Amino acid sequence: MPGEFDFIRWVRGRTPADARVLIGPGDDCAALVPPARELLVTTDLLTDGTDFVLADVDPRQVGRKAMAVNLSDVAAMAGVPLAAVVAVALPAGASRGLAEALIMGLRDVADAFGVAIVGGDTNTWAGGLVVAVTVLGEATDRGPVRRSGARPGDWVFVTGPVGGSILGRHLSPAPRVREAQALHAAVELHAMADISDGLAADLNHILEESGCGAVVSDDAVPVHPDAVRLSARTGRPPLDHALGDGEDFELVFTVAPADGARLLADPPVAGLARVGECVASGLWLDRGGRREPLPPRGWVHEV
Amino acid sequence: MPGEFDFIRWVRGRTPADARVLIGPGDDCAALVPPARELLVTTDLLTDGTDFVLADVDPRQVGRKAMAVNLSDVAAMAGVPLAAVVAVALPAGASRGLAEALIMGLRDVADAFGVAIVGGDTNTWAGGLVVAVTVLGEATDRGPVRRSGARPGDWVFVTGPVGGSILGRHLSPAPRVREAQALHAAVELHAMADISDGLAADLNHILEESGCGAVVSDDAVPVHPDAVRLSARTGRPPLDHALGDGEDFELVFTVAPADGARLLADPPVAGLARVGECVASGLWLDRGGRREPLPPRGWVHEV
Repeated sequence: MPGEFDFIRWVRGRTPADARVLIGPGDDCAALVPPARELLVTTDLLTDGTDFVLADVDPRQVGRKAMAVNLSDVAAMAGVPLAAVVAVALPAGASRGLAEALIMGLRDVADAFGVAIVGGDTNTWAGGLVVAVTVLGEATDRGPVRRSGARPGDWVFVTGPVGGSILGRHLSPAPRVREAQALHAAVELHAMADISDGLAADLNHILEESGCGAVVSDDAVPVHPDAVRLSARTGRPPLDHALGDGEDFELVFTVAPADGARLLADPPVAGLARVGECVASGLWLDRGGRREPLPPRGWVHEV
Repeated sequence: MPGEFDFIRWVRGRTPADARVLIGPGDDCAALVPPARELLVTTDLLTDGTDFVLADVDPRQVGRKAMAVNLSDVAAMAGVPLAAVVAVALPAGASRGLAEALIMGLRDVADAFGVAIVGGDTNTWAGGLVVAVTVLGEATDRGPVRRSGARPGDWVFVTGPVGGSILGRHLSPAPRVREAQALHAAVELHAMADISDGLAADLNHILEESGCGAVVSDDAVPVHPDAVRLSARTGRPPLDHALGDGEDFELVFTVAPADGARLLADPPVAGLARVGECVASGLWLDRGGRREPLPPRGWVHEV
């Protein structure tokens, strides 16, 4: 429409040369050099009022989050992100500044991970802001890591402290793309997921796909300082927030005990914590030697 | 969220086996066998009130349209569609029936073109229905057809009658995937686009990318009966609707004159019409030998 912000032209004028991109924004499709290994694809859509509150945040943060949550999914497979397409629904009357800030945020994170934004679709409508990003990637030569490979006896790790992301961290997630690749190169990862729904919930996704269970030790979970701060507001224990809060975007993964010991002895990435081990069935919290059921989801994330 | 319609599980239980899909819905990413040739990617997002009016249509039609418009972009490159991911924002309180009908519609069109729905993201929010589809494809061995290859002297073709899609046809587009491949196999296509914005506007996209112009003959444009019906309502000539209306999803393309003559003598697909030819610059309508400027966009499409 005349006068409408033209996302495609804007991106096009600012897309750095990338030998993998044969055709960038401006044609009906983008075209990429086909990856040599398994082609990964993931999509995540963010909406105003659910994943962010536009009235309260810089739209650049919205763009960053929209790209980062997708890269986190590629990290969860220990993949290499390559390219992204972006579809946005802008509120009617939204300023050009909003669209530009949004795209700047998308580019901030894409650039930091060598991801080319190769196309998109801009729409204006009577509703709120919606941002849908799809990221393409490829597996490393060790293949993609799935959720389904956990086995009883495996050690369960997380890549960093969790809980309380709602205090602000959820808007600027740091996708663990490089960490996942370093871990995948160091040991055989049996199963992995990113922590978007919450540690307990995402670990449970692994267990459901793998057909086994796990015990998490209450004193082993790395509790983020934000979980402690949030606890002071909610009156709930910090551990509850660490286990139940979503949008941390750390990774949870399982490995054979020998590989787990190797990771602890010579960690290829900072922040690793062993939080428990896989068992035959169920999801349990070990409180000083006593096992109690651990609900796979604490509560629904609300911004 | 408990009780929420789980798109992923639903699709997963109904995804037919496909040797190209290594990992389908249920992991953090889907994984595909990498295509042998150029990887194509396109995304299109539809919103309630702009691309459809949910109160007036079967949501299954919305699903069909959301998939078809993306396949049309792959057709515009003469590509082979392979797989799709779907991100939806459902209105809070939407029935399970709405989500299922939407996905049935997506599947109707995906299945018809051998496209696997390999993943997605379901969200519920306070806003209206938004459907974002990303389709992956690959080029044929003749490579992707771009917008930028038109040359003065080329003949301009469309694959079928255009105009008046707003009377209902816009909801059930027939992406010209097979037609594009047949044309690409028969002759050397210089430039191609699908008619989403309107014949004049999409031809103009080709001209802008190619750095040339075109003359369209007023008596050569295949006017759809819907354009005639709409004309009776709007008082505007049917040709205006044929040139300006969007969402026909026929293809407009250019070829060398010798190839054009070959297509007319032995059409590889039905419905082909030669509508004009490329010139050095400008976009013109030839009315019985008199050239007048043809505005590249008639008006903004409104549902």
